[in-house]
Amino acid sequence: MKWNKDTFALKGNLLYTPSPEKLVSLASHYLVCEGGKVSGAFPVLPERYKGISVRDFGDSLIIPGFVDLHMHAPQYAMRGLGMDMELLQWLESFTFPEEARYADLLYAEKAYRIFAQDLKKSSIARACIFGTIHADATFLLMQLLEETGIVAAVGKVNMDVNCPDYYGESTMQSISETVRWIEASQERFQRIFPILTPRFAPVCSSGLMGELAGLQQKYCLPLQSHLSENRAEGQWVQSLFPESRFYGEVYDRFGIFGSHGPTVMAHCVYSSPDEVALMKERGVFIAHCPQSNVNLASGIAPARSYLDGGQRMGLGSDISGGFSLSGFRAISDAIQMSKLFWRLQDTDKKPLSLSDAFYLATKGGGAFFGKVGSFEEGYAFDVLVLDDTFLASPARLDMVSRLERLVYLAGQDCICEKYVSGVKVWDAIEDR
Amino acid sequence: MKWNKDTFALKGNLLYTPSPEKLVSLASHYLVCEGGKVSGAFPVLPERYKGISVRDFGDSLIIPGFVDLHMHAPQYAMRGLGMDMELLQWLESFTFPEEARYADLLYAEKAYRIFAQDLKKSSIARACIFGTIHADATFLLMQLLEETGIVAAVGKVNMDVNCPDYYGESTMQSISETVRWIEASQERFQRIFPILTPRFAPVCSSGLMGELAGLQQKYCLPLQSHLSENRAEGQWVQSLFPESRFYGEVYDRFGIFGSHGPTVMAHCVYSSPDEVALMKERGVFIAHCPQSNVNLASGIAPARSYLDGGQRMGLGSDISGGFSLSGFRAISDAIQMSKLFWRLQDTDKKPLSLSDAFYLATKGGGAFFGKVGSFEEGYAFDVLVLDDTFLASPARLDMVSRLERLVYLAGQDCICEKYVSGVKVWDAIEDR
Repeated sequence: MKWNKDTFALKGNLLYTPSPEKLVSLASHYLVCEGGKVSGAFPVLPERYKGISVRDFGDSLIIPGFVDLHMHAPQYAMRGLGMDMELLQWLESFTFPEEARYADLLYAEKAYRIFAQDLKKSSIARACIFGTIHADATFLLMQLLEETGIVAAVGKVNMDVNCPDYYGESTMQSISETVRWIEASQERFQRIFPILTPRFAPVCSSGLMGELAGLQQKYCLPLQSHLSENRAEGQWVQSLFPESRFYGEVYDRFGIFGSHGPTVMAHCVYSSPDEVALMKERGVFIAHCPQSNVNLASGIAPARSYLDGGQRMGLGSDISGGFSLSGFRAISDAIQMSKLFWRLQDTDKKPLSLSDAFYLATKGGGAFFGKVGSFEEGYAFDVLVLDDTFLASPARLDMVSRLERLVYLAGQDCICEKYVSGVKVWDAIEDR
Repeated sequence: MKWNKDTFALKGNLLYTPSPEKLVSLASHYLVCEGGKVSGAFPVLPERYKGISVRDFGDSLIIPGFVDLHMHAPQYAMRGLGMDMELLQWLESFTFPEEARYADLLYAEKAYRIFAQDLKKSSIARACIFGTIHADATFLLMQLLEETGIVAAVGKVNMDVNCPDYYGESTMQSISETVRWIEASQERFQRIFPILTPRFAPVCSSGLMGELAGLQQKYCLPLQSHLSENRAEGQWVQSLFPESRFYGEVYDRFGIFGSHGPTVMAHCVYSSPDEVALMKERGVFIAHCPQSNVNLASGIAPARSYLDGGQRMGLGSDISGGFSLSGFRAISDAIQMSKLFWRLQDTDKKPLSLSDAFYLATKGGGAFFGKVGSFEEGYAFDVLVLDDTFLASPARLDMVSRLERLVYLAGQDCICEKYVSGVKVWDAIEDR
């Protein structure tokens, strides 16, 4: 039988987490791809695959591509800047002025091209991404991301109240521009799709949120926003929406809290038990963004409780509340912050293990995109081939130790190749 | 006048912190070195320096080399491993077995060569370094470090009680080996000098500590150890030394808490007010190791209090409680942890600013080595020349923003050249 190029195998040391507590390591195995999906992992290539193309990566580690459930593309240009501020001050002094610049398509093109190029080279295979309020710049971002080969949900931001003079929209404008953007972008791309993106409750009017619920039903779209990130933000929401018992209920009252489509909420540092219960009931994903929550001095989200409570959850870089695009860094940050949560807030909540956090960065967040983030049969063939030879060691290390070391020490340079849905989207050697 | 090569200038954008709150930025200045020391920073090269060699680094940033007040060389091989454990468990399962291997000089040579090479390339210009209990391996480490050009205080570890069977020494053996090592290494090297290194109170007998105080006076040596890192450790110390009111008093009773020479104590997460007051009285340096304190789930040291209280303090990587040799990472970790301290422990203690933490990594820790860590006149010419062009930006950034971005995003690759006491010890281009 003659195989086409959609069927092939990568050979190396496979690591993946079918569940949080289970880190599977398969030394020197073949990972077979058929039609963009994993068809199996085998110590010896089965007879039925005789003749397929095999790339042997020797002693390299092979892991699922990471999923980033929350980032802001226009803030990439300011990552690592203004870090001496808290959320609301930082939004006003840094973020809104930067985002306003994307009205200028020339600036947007320059900045988004840098973002797309870096994302392509990064460990991220799939992402949920905020744009700005500008429909045209957001469409441009989608075009640039389509070229990277990664899969992404990208949203034009909606915000119509409590905005600065220079950065905001009227309710009508917000809706009409959103419709224009949806109709231009839906089914326009192979790998990029629109996601509704009310920024966060304090800058969205009741009217706007109600309209967005209608658009979600009409166009069958997912939705992303922010939730319970910061104490001052929570108090602000309470004063704006006194009829709601908790922050998430604001979204829920307008029908944009998971009842009409897949929904992801970033942060959930201060979610009340009722809010957590409603997220579970509605299947709302939590984008846990530990680095951002530290940088903006928001606090530490109770990731252990969410994981043990069966919440749907993945990790988010929150560029640029977080400064790092690295999925490795997101994993180590999640572990570190869970240790401090245990030490300083609740000694009943044991820290996340390597396996727990790796699961969140792969299969946990991957579920937002379907069967993604694992090497189980039928999962999308999203793969990172890793070279850790830059980390010299006097002794031989086992596979899990090598993965742990990369989680803490990996830079950009460790990624040899990246595949998304079976397509190679990045090759370090070809890029040199 | 003909100048010799000890007098030269580097030209670029200078950044340094003469005090914690003062981040000086001098665009396109000449930093002049005479005999290994900074003789000034000038917008135009003064007439008196006519004819000296000038290297123009264009738009690059030029900062003082970083000082790392606490790390364990033999643990470098296991950095980023075993991170799912707390201090005492981690010592027993990972650290002591690894350190025991350094009885084998062939293993030690292999591992220490990797450490020395990585340290040479790193952002660290000066460091306080723990070895193992082995005098010969520690001497070998000093030889390898001498070749790197960095300045370091290196210590043979002392531990004679509560040690595992396979890793420990008798009191007499500990002292005689320490004397042998001191006499072999003192004044043997240009840049490396011995420092007494009782590991920490629970593994040192009263007899050993008393003897070390004698050696400190006899040989005029500095001393390093650990202090108040972890809750369980603190309780252990209290049960072993019930007559001491606090942990530091154990060291002080035996005369090894700054009364006979420069002393640096790592961690100080749980130091009582009495302990803090005694450190100030004795001039004891605090090595603040935020990354390690998170990894081992120890807690967060009150760095803001120490800084405002006028304690002598610098940063430490604590390889391998910490996994990263990067001084940039130490700075960002210190800032991040101070934010969580403010948020979760004491809202009166405002977070460290970029300037505060940069000061700790340079002049704060540098004071342990004398006039080190600043570009003020008379300070050691310890310099990093940095290339941040790998961080593409759609807009032009000011110098402080560029520094902030490097603090959060720098990898190894940003260091073009490193000078220690006026000698170039690392050049990225020559190394390629």
